[in-house]
Amino acid sequence: MNPSRCFERIRVVLHRPSHPGNIGAAARAMKTMGLSRLVLVEPRRFPDREADALAVNAADLLAAAKICSSLKQALEGVALAVAWSARGRDLSHAPLEARAAAAETVALAGTSEVALVFGNETAGLANEDVLLCNRLAHIPTVPDFSSLNLAAAVQIVAYEIYLAAGTAARAAQSQPSSKGEFSGRDEIDTRGEIYSKRELATVEQVEHFYAHLESSLGQTDFLEPGKPKRMMERMRRLFGRAGLQREEVNILRGMLTAWDRKGQGGEES
Amino acid sequence: MNPSRCFERIRVVLHRPSHPGNIGAAARAMKTMGLSRLVLVEPRRFPDREADALAVNAADLLAAAKICSSLKQALEGVALAVAWSARGRDLSHAPLEARAAAAETVALAGTSEVALVFGNETAGLANEDVLLCNRLAHIPTVPDFSSLNLAAAVQIVAYEIYLAAGTAARAAQSQPSSKGEFSGRDEIDTRGEIYSKRELATVEQVEHFYAHLESSLGQTDFLEPGKPKRMMERMRRLFGRAGLQREEVNILRGMLTAWDRKGQGGEES
Repeated sequence: MNPSRCFERIRVVLHRPSHPGNIGAAARAMKTMGLSRLVLVEPRRFPDREADALAVNAADLLAAAKICSSLKQALEGVALAVAWSARGRDLSHAPLEARAAAAETVALAGTSEVALVFGNETAGLANEDVLLCNRLAHIPTVPDFSSLNLAAAVQIVAYEIYLAAGTAARAAQSQPSSKGEFSGRDEIDTRGEIYSKRELATVEQVEHFYAHLESSLGQTDFLEPGKPKRMMERMRRLFGRAGLQREEVNILRGMLTAWDRKGQGGEES
Repeated sequence: MNPSRCFERIRVVLHRPSHPGNIGAAARAMKTMGLSRLVLVEPRRFPDREADALAVNAADLLAAAKICSSLKQALEGVALAVAWSARGRDLSHAPLEARAAAAETVALAGTSEVALVFGNETAGLANEDVLLCNRLAHIPTVPDFSSLNLAAAVQIVAYEIYLAAGTAARAAQSQPSSKGEFSGRDEIDTRGEIYSKRELATVEQVEHFYAHLESSLGQTDFLEPGKPKRMMERMRRLFGRAGLQREEVNILRGMLTAWDRKGQGGEES
């Protein structure tokens, strides 16, 4: 594998960063580890002199940074969205440690778009932001002082990704017959899962499935009126763990459509 | 091994740091990873408000920091002194990568004093400083942009040491005589998932769900007549990846029942 190829498919998303200095420091941290795509969701101040100062020689990343008005927009086209959070969450998808999350990121970025999502300096990521992502990951710290600086967190994650890409590249190189990205090997990631054979669904496709599921259930007596939220969260967790493939989303939506039609057919007959 | 014991024998030495903000940020980085002993050699400005501001809740480390007038003094009593440098050196000892250097640091700190030495923000460590140390280590970065921020470098090294200490502690724990640290962590399996919190469904429960799904779909026009097998295989793979919990099976079956009822209700009305 050519690491730079895989890096091109990785975007770092800073969600509502308060301090422009952290944006600059995060850009510098990314650049030391070969990452270049910075996405900012509603930054409080940007562009800003403080960001430029702390970016040092990573001004090119700031100049090319994409500004979004919502996390949803920032995740467009993404197959894997990793929410980085220090807090444990009851509603969580399976929490991964940084090293395992980096291995998964690199394995997937060989073929698909990946987003690494970091929350605001003080508030972190809200539950609803985490639920837009399909992985939850954290950086191991001492239990009683988990307050990493935002750019420091980006630095550690970028470092783990750089190392993981090197490991993957070395493994690919050691198989003389294989050519191109990850071939021969890419099918199996650290979780023992098969990725490249089947294309993962994008975040949008999965969101459309959730919306369809909620509307289909809304036509039945299943959901407590006005309280679909908790149930939908459970479903997000379940399917988030599975990592839905594009084809599977199509199948599931086909099923929902069949159930939707069923009620209508019953009335007609 | 008790990690906190080993951490007590590790000092972080900042050699002639220029920016007090970096001293504060380094202290915060250390504290997140359980390191507490900060040694400053000829800091340009210290104490300083900027250091306090960036230390956030690591003010205790700044208050306890030891100020030295020479690197030699800072290394007193040390058995292992690791010089951290981005630059390759002709005169070097065998350079270690961060992960290997962290493992060695933790192994030695079980019994001896260890110093981690970081140079000035712009000049780094001079050759004569490196020669006072008995190891040279570096943090892997992309070759053409190795300019890590000082506190970011401390963050990565502290992180690697924290992980190395955890690995050492787990290795010790797997020997039945040891007790303490990290207990209750075993719930996390290799995929990083927490299993014990939620009870997994039994094989029978999952089989009942699949049977129910197939029968529910049989009441619609979704399944190709006589060919439900392939579709059901896809569903088995999907839910198999997720690892269904008992509660989730109940929810899914509740949904199926609601869709089942829907058709009947339609006919009745």
